[in-house]
Amino acid sequence: MSNDNIEQKRQELDQLNLEILKLINQRAALSKEIGQLKLAQGTNKFDPERERHMLNQIAEHNQGPFEDSTVQHLFKQIFKASLDLQKVSSQKTLLVSRKQKSEDTVVQIDDVKIGAAGHPQMFVGPCSVESLDQVRQVAAAVKEQGLFILRGGAFKPRTSPYDFQGLGVEGLKILRQAGDEFGLKVISEIVTPGDIEVAVEYLDMIQIGARNMQNFELLKAAGKVDKPVLLKRGLSATIEEFIYAAEYILANGNTNVILCERGIRTYERATRNTLDISAVPILKQETHLPVIVDVTHSTGRRDLLLPTARAALAIGADGVMVEVHPDPETALSDAKQQINIPQFREFMSELKGTKIASV
Amino acid sequence: MSNDNIEQKRQELDQLNLEILKLINQRAALSKEIGQLKLAQGTNKFDPERERHMLNQIAEHNQGPFEDSTVQHLFKQIFKASLDLQKVSSQKTLLVSRKQKSEDTVVQIDDVKIGAAGHPQMFVGPCSVESLDQVRQVAAAVKEQGLFILRGGAFKPRTSPYDFQGLGVEGLKILRQAGDEFGLKVISEIVTPGDIEVAVEYLDMIQIGARNMQNFELLKAAGKVDKPVLLKRGLSATIEEFIYAAEYILANGNTNVILCERGIRTYERATRNTLDISAVPILKQETHLPVIVDVTHSTGRRDLLLPTARAALAIGADGVMVEVHPDPETALSDAKQQINIPQFREFMSELKGTKIASV
Amino acid sequence: MSNDNIEQKRQELDQLNLEILKLINQRAALSKEIGQLKLAQGTNKFDPERERHMLNQIAEHNQGPFEDSTVQHLFKQIFKASLDLQKVSSQKTLLVSRKQKSEDTVVQIDDVKIGAAGHPQMFVGPCSVESLDQVRQVAAAVKEQGLFILRGGAFKPRTSPYDFQGLGVEGLKILRQAGDEFGLKVISEIVTPGDIEVAVEYLDMIQIGARNMQNFELLKAAGKVDKPVLLKRGLSATIEEFIYAAEYILANGNTNVILCERGIRTYERATRNTLDISAVPILKQETHLPVIVDVTHSTGRRDLLLPTARAALAIGADGVMVEVHPDPETALSDAKQQINIPQFREFMSELKGTKIASV
Amino acid sequence: MSNDNIEQKRQELDQLNLEILKLINQRAALSKEIGQLKLAQGTNKFDPERERHMLNQIAEHNQGPFEDSTVQHLFKQIFKASLDLQKVSSQKTLLVSRKQKSEDTVVQIDDVKIGAAGHPQMFVGPCSVESLDQVRQVAAAVKEQGLFILRGGAFKPRTSPYDFQGLGVEGLKILRQAGDEFGLKVISEIVTPGDIEVAVEYLDMIQIGARNMQNFELLKAAGKVDKPVLLKRGLSATIEEFIYAAEYILANGNTNVILCERGIRTYERATRNTLDISAVPILKQETHLPVIVDVTHSTGRRDLLLPTARAALAIGADGVMVEVHPDPETALSDAKQQINIPQFREFMSELKGTKIASV
Repeated sequence: MSNDNIEQKRQELDQLNLEILKLINQRAALSKEIGQLKLAQGTNKFDPERERHMLNQIAEHNQGPFEDSTVQHLFKQIFKASLDLQKVSSQKTLLVSRKQKSEDTVVQIDDVKIGAAGHPQMFVGPCSVESLDQVRQVAAAVKEQGLFILRGGAFKPRTSPYDFQGLGVEGLKILRQAGDEFGLKVISEIVTPGDIEVAVEYLDMIQIGARNMQNFELLKAAGKVDKPVLLKRGLSATIEEFIYAAEYILANGNTNVILCERGIRTYERATRNTLDISAVPILKQETHLPVIVDVTHSTGRRDLLLPTARAALAIGADGVMVEVHPDPETALSDAKQQINIPQFREFMSELKGTKIASV
Repeated sequence: MSNDNIEQKRQELDQLNLEILKLINQRAALSKEIGQLKLAQGTNKFDPERERHMLNQIAEHNQGPFEDSTVQHLFKQIFKASLDLQKVSSQKTLLVSRKQKSEDTVVQIDDVKIGAAGHPQMFVGPCSVESLDQVRQVAAAVKEQGLFILRGGAFKPRTSPYDFQGLGVEGLKILRQAGDEFGLKVISEIVTPGDIEVAVEYLDMIQIGARNMQNFELLKAAGKVDKPVLLKRGLSATIEEFIYAAEYILANGNTNVILCERGIRTYERATRNTLDISAVPILKQETHLPVIVDVTHSTGRRDLLLPTARAALAIGADGVMVEVHPDPETALSDAKQQINIPQFREFMSELKGTKIASV
Repeated sequence: MSNDNIEQKRQELDQLNLEILKLINQRAALSKEIGQLKLAQGTNKFDPERERHMLNQIAEHNQGPFEDSTVQHLFKQIFKASLDLQKVSSQKTLLVSRKQKSEDTVVQIDDVKIGAAGHPQMFVGPCSVESLDQVRQVAAAVKEQGLFILRGGAFKPRTSPYDFQGLGVEGLKILRQAGDEFGLKVISEIVTPGDIEVAVEYLDMIQIGARNMQNFELLKAAGKVDKPVLLKRGLSATIEEFIYAAEYILANGNTNVILCERGIRTYERATRNTLDISAVPILKQETHLPVIVDVTHSTGRRDLLLPTARAALAIGADGVMVEVHPDPETALSDAKQQINIPQFREFMSELKGTKIASV
Repeated sequence: MSNDNIEQKRQELDQLNLEILKLINQRAALSKEIGQLKLAQGTNKFDPERERHMLNQIAEHNQGPFEDSTVQHLFKQIFKASLDLQKVSSQKTLLVSRKQKSEDTVVQIDDVKIGAAGHPQMFVGPCSVESLDQVRQVAAAVKEQGLFILRGGAFKPRTSPYDFQGLGVEGLKILRQAGDEFGLKVISEIVTPGDIEVAVEYLDMIQIGARNMQNFELLKAAGKVDKPVLLKRGLSATIEEFIYAAEYILANGNTNVILCERGIRTYERATRNTLDISAVPILKQETHLPVIVDVTHSTGRRDLLLPTARAALAIGADGVMVEVHPDPETALSDAKQQINIPQFREFMSELKGTKIASV
């Protein structure tokens, strides 16, 4: 008898489910209409006072068995879903989102494409630009490998004010000169809005570094130039925060953004940072932007550059950044983690020959 | 007109809210009845097949504007709230919870009370028991300060198999002997269920260490003895996991549990671990158990023992654990973070004299 | 016999120790002289090529039993110690360091002192400045409590570009007006170097937020104004990085810097961040600057504001920052974690009455 | 003149370097001899009292320019190097280390090999064993793919004492029966030393889970059986701690150990854990043991299983563990992250067809 009883009550429950469903959708439709009226008035969609009023009313009328806090929690979920619905309907899907644009963004500089499926790019060069001679040596090696992009730091964000801070504009000029000589596109980091103007004069792409991922004024300024921007993930930024940081750039008009996973800060010290390799497929799913991996900063170890570059390509990254210096031991920054030119040749040769063992 | 319009639609919305509220509560009551029928039958409350059936049905009948995934999400929240209601009604509120028992648990061993408001206790002793002489020296210092509890490690969980692993049962005997001589209650860590039986013979309290916080068989075994258990938070355990670990002990019958915050693993290396001081008031709110702070392991630095002990007492901890060794430099474990006996006297004198500057 | 043997060999070892000691100090003296010659020439002290030359030479001459890598490691330690010696001798001890200046820095604005021993200050105000009326209500409450400092955000760094970004200069004016009316010193966050000039016109103190702790151009700009700077610890900054960030400000001429611990990012989600309370005594030891604790952002929970404020004062913080809003539920940012004015009165009353239980 | 002067002083410095080198090596040789004498006596190599004596003596005789703390630091480095030398010479290189055994360990069960270069293995099965029918369905799918290893949890470590705790020995029997029927090797987790005996009766391999990575008594017990052990990295274990945990097993006699990276706990919540992909090449370098990657627990997301499995194979993992359940929605544990059988077929087909884009 008990089983029959359960079965009967379950049918009642199913019926209740469908009634609740109907009402929730009615409520959503009504809430959407209100949202459109408010939009026409130019008022904010989210209205905390109104929400509080409704929550109070719900508690007042609640007769259980659910506790007030439980029904309030359930209604907050309903309110939130309604608000999300309003956002979607009024074009607030993020500009970076795949939902907004399903095809991949391919960033193109002349004939160099970043983000074209099946054609990953290498971003190669010294941590810091130190001299024309130094940069030319690396540029020649990059060219020799049939690659297209040269990186180098001119404005260096350094933990200590007494560390080498980069050559500044002089470094940008060196980079440009070497780029022109070897037919390479050049990229360098900019650290403050005031330097953007001079930077775009010399660079093909602007980099915004990990420490500045939430320097929102810099993001806005980068959103207003017509050069591609490579945005690195912050030292301990969540993927969500990273996506919103990119949105700042797109929201200001610049759609040519490349995302760069560069390791996150964790308790582990065997590597300089912990490469969050899963971020690559997540970013590729959530956004339509190219995603590359900086194997140098994520590991901080020469012996891990090749294996992590392999993992990055296997997981679908659109490129790999690696630091190369003619004589790393004497480098003015990051001496321990850069490779020299013969090591770079070896690295490229091994990387090109990567085979995955079949399971 | 538009404002009138909005106001009118808002009243409709309020009406819908109340109808939904009514149905949700009807649903909850029905679900509770089904739960009781199932309880009578001895079947599990959570029935994933039934839940999937309902979710499918809801998607089938959904006509928007909410997407299927949104309404399914909302219903999952409702299902979960209903299930929680069943749990509550069938006594499944956690035994450690303040909701279950509002007054503080005071753990009492003879006339020594742990958790009595306004009367914090010190847990003092060497990291490892090394010899009777060593333990006697510390015990005398503990007694001299008018304190009641002596700690010392006999079974030492060590990262390397080649490090000193403790004196084992011999260490327990030394501890008991020193405790008896100086009239102190003794506590030591147990690392495997098989040692519990011998441990209760010699100890007044059993400690379960950070590495074993989720050694569930050990927790169950500790739940079956009639000695108080001091449970340390795991190296990177969330507060929620910590609370559930304590629940394992209570669920097995032992209600005399003391919680110990001992620092969590973060990226910061200035300290051995990061003392999560906020965990103390959270644990005091969420549970009725005494909460102490181990200042030695959370900081790993002698110079921080006094300030963190002050913070612990100010925030409402029921006690402080601190490691003291007659000659820390030659200690067989944790040499760097223990204080010697004159330092301990100084520490106690300063701690007793703590004054808080008024704002 | 074996014991005698050991004893004899130990005496030989002691002799060797002293010879090595003598040579290492000779080497240090010589290295210091070279450093001074190079200083006179204006060349950089650290010379990686020279270092590599020496390391190569050492490996060439090494005959064991130590492996080459071991002796190279030991010599690198010696080189580093020598270099540190040169740095110390040429005044490179950090300006923020206690070694540089042993007495506490007291930041003074008119007769309001921050960092005076035994006199902690409260920093109180809304997360965002929303209107003059809102700020006046809080200012009155601050005044009523006999406090001196009013905070409020005008330029808001927000994760999403679509969130409320603050009133900007209008917000600074409101803050100034309320400050003048109630006789309070006012502080607000600046997020980009370009806004510093207008900010100093209206503010008594400038705040640099967690997201900008390593916005080095902003730090440099703040180092050039004659207003005190409150610097917050980065979301996942180490204490060492935090100290270096402060050094950027002092190195640019501004010695009136206040450090603010505001919680770090960890795996724990019971709190918004994890308050690293141990950072307070470490920063007080390592630097001569005032150190305060932001209890609002470190916990993100109203119920933890009072206990963590107590812990902050007990551990020796020079002040506490807490967010207060006339109606937190409707706040444009951080609605969940601000307290209203009656709650603030209760908070102050409880905080003033804090007693520490004696052990 | 100054340059000549510098050059001359540098030559003196070089001379001093070589003298120091000679003495350090003399000291090392002497220290090694003392170590051997002590070994013969059976006394511990590390003697903290002796070390303190030497450090005191060094400070007494130090005449600068180095400070006492600096020379003591340098000598501690020398002492440590000497001690390491003694350890190496007395066979204390870890048994798991590549320095101890340069060739790869291949774990073999009948004709199934784990760790054979170029032949990665899949470890496939449900999170929990729930019924014979359930396990048989998965076993058939494993067999169908030409794979060899079937996993399934019988003893489940669960955060809450009220969650499903596994079928226990009944689960082991089901696993054995399905393994025998389909010709598969079976593996399951053991959580306490007391269950090892019954486990080896039914299993081909024993798994020690993340929560028990530092359950040292369990590691010791697993070291004494003659079945291979798969050891998972702890939730927030460093790579060093992971290696030492494996050493516990080898030190107790069992050399057939497989290491499993399964993600670490970080602040990021887009994934259940953060897959530390770099750990794979580090573990392969540091140890001679096979290393596999658990893509299910490291990501906790079905949509990331394939990309992370690709990355794991590309970086050189010896295998991949993935959870498969005939009907994941109704699974008694980890419902969200398991794939069903058609999804598993798709996963295998895609994984086998993985191509890496050439740079």
